[in-house]
Amino acid sequence: MSTAATSIKNPVLVVGSVALDSVETPFGKADEVLGGSGTYFSSSASHFTPVQLVGVVGDDYPVEKLEPLAARGVDLAGLEKASGTSFRWRGRYRHDLNSAETLETHLGVFSHFRPKIPDQFKRSPFVFLANIDPRLQLQVLEQVEKPRLVACDTMNFWIESRRPDLVELLRHVDLITLNDAEARQLTEHTNLVQAARWIMDKGPKHVLIKKGEHGAFMFTRDSIFFAPAYPLESVFDPTGAGDSFAGGFIGYLAATGDLSDANMRRAVVVGSAMGSFAVEKFSNARLLEITRADIDARIREFRQLVAFDTELGA
Amino acid sequence: MSTAATSIKNPVLVVGSVALDSVETPFGKADEVLGGSGTYFSSSASHFTPVQLVGVVGDDYPVEKLEPLAARGVDLAGLEKASGTSFRWRGRYRHDLNSAETLETHLGVFSHFRPKIPDQFKRSPFVFLANIDPRLQLQVLEQVEKPRLVACDTMNFWIESRRPDLVELLRHVDLITLNDAEARQLTEHTNLVQAARWIMDKGPKHVLIKKGEHGAFMFTRDSIFFAPAYPLESVFDPTGAGDSFAGGFIGYLAATGDLSDANMRRAVVVGSAMGSFAVEKFSNARLLEITRADIDARIREFRQLVAFDTELGA
Repeated sequence: MSTAATSIKNPVLVVGSVALDSVETPFGKADEVLGGSGTYFSSSASHFTPVQLVGVVGDDYPVEKLEPLAARGVDLAGLEKASGTSFRWRGRYRHDLNSAETLETHLGVFSHFRPKIPDQFKRSPFVFLANIDPRLQLQVLEQVEKPRLVACDTMNFWIESRRPDLVELLRHVDLITLNDAEARQLTEHTNLVQAARWIMDKGPKHVLIKKGEHGAFMFTRDSIFFAPAYPLESVFDPTGAGDSFAGGFIGYLAATGDLSDANMRRAVVVGSAMGSFAVEKFSNARLLEITRADIDARIREFRQLVAFDTELGA
Repeated sequence: MSTAATSIKNPVLVVGSVALDSVETPFGKADEVLGGSGTYFSSSASHFTPVQLVGVVGDDYPVEKLEPLAARGVDLAGLEKASGTSFRWRGRYRHDLNSAETLETHLGVFSHFRPKIPDQFKRSPFVFLANIDPRLQLQVLEQVEKPRLVACDTMNFWIESRRPDLVELLRHVDLITLNDAEARQLTEHTNLVQAARWIMDKGPKHVLIKKGEHGAFMFTRDSIFFAPAYPLESVFDPTGAGDSFAGGFIGYLAATGDLSDANMRRAVVVGSAMGSFAVEKFSNARLLEITRADIDARIREFRQLVAFDTELGA
């Protein structure tokens, strides 16, 4: 499997946060670096297809940080500049790197964000609603015209505070990505097979449950697919891994325009590869420096990781 | 891949515990049922190859519980009957089923266990040292004659209390199975790739790190293989999953006599399949009722679970 160029390349519209992150890991510190679900998704997806980013920054945002995204073909026409301070997140990872400890969240202009989809983005056939208020995710869907695939992400905060809106959103999306803890919280099923079925009963035909370092499941009515996380020797900063996964996954689907089960499985592997790059450096740094050859090599390593042949044995 | 009969079928010698377990899960209770690492390993491995079990029970042990093992070709000539009470374990699983809470451990005759390998078992080419005191595991190795493959398991208790003996044991085994927490505790590396390398530096050429519901890694110098745990809709009782995994893994290797990387990978999948059966009922019940056809069907499901094709995409 190569991710080499094709002629389809549907654009993907993403609505999400554009933030300034300050992160501490056992390996170092980064201050006020490019962050937010929208930027991770875009950096990742831009390796496969044109990306249209809708979000908001304050008038204090160092916009030069977004230049590498623009250079990679991310259309920033939907990035609103509002009066006020930008969304800032400060977090820390301890030695196990599995969960971030949030030290500070400053929403700034993000707390009044009302996504406005530019006209030229409204017919984008692939839409990713990154982790924002489900009410805003629903507002985005009112503005777009019959996308082929709508996917959304969410988080514990919305499951707790906006459950009815989130359940309403599920009626309108084809696919949801969420992590295992969120799937359990949302569905009140401990067992992930049962949790996925609960979600599919609400609407989505595909449920992607991300388990961080333990890989990801894609559930459909008829099948289950699993892709491991790549066993990296050094995980540097886990921030953004899930959104980078989603960017690779949806970006690859948009680029190929192929929603068959076989291609969705390939897309999960592409997503896992992109997630594995994201964690190798702070911020979007690694996503913005890798080449198509790096991605293809990583995907070959994934294949090796799970390959077992089917000759007769004992 | 089919696990159908072959003509090789090397026997495998296992030294481990034979216990009476009392288990509570969210789904029910079982009292004084067949338990212990030796029985789970044997029940599982007996689907592939003849098994020789060495262990000890007290004179209160209801030996009729072992009849199904004997009926499956497990040779009990090495099962010592000592004067005293049998090893009993009482445990409970809460809703997440990930870790057992030990309510009571009564070692009984197991606390004075000194494994004596019957002469007719001493030339067994495959040896599994289940989770017992590393000093006893070393004593077993003094009694056997040049096995082709020696594998061992261990646990947190021995890592803490018998570290020098365990490190000495590593010099004499080809392969170790342990769970992720144990690998981290033993090596003081959080990262599993680094942990595996630490262990390989001490001796074993293969390190199998079991992650329970998150699957298992097999590390060698040259490659990493990953097999997911099968996503069961209902896990009934996790007790014995790791030993059943080891039984399928080593049993399959012994049956085929093939230690190539390709066959070791197949063996990990067989082990994962056997672990997935073990948790479907209390005790050894499911392992003792399944057929070769059930096993082959589960292995086909594993293949489907990780299958992605390699055609060109975007």
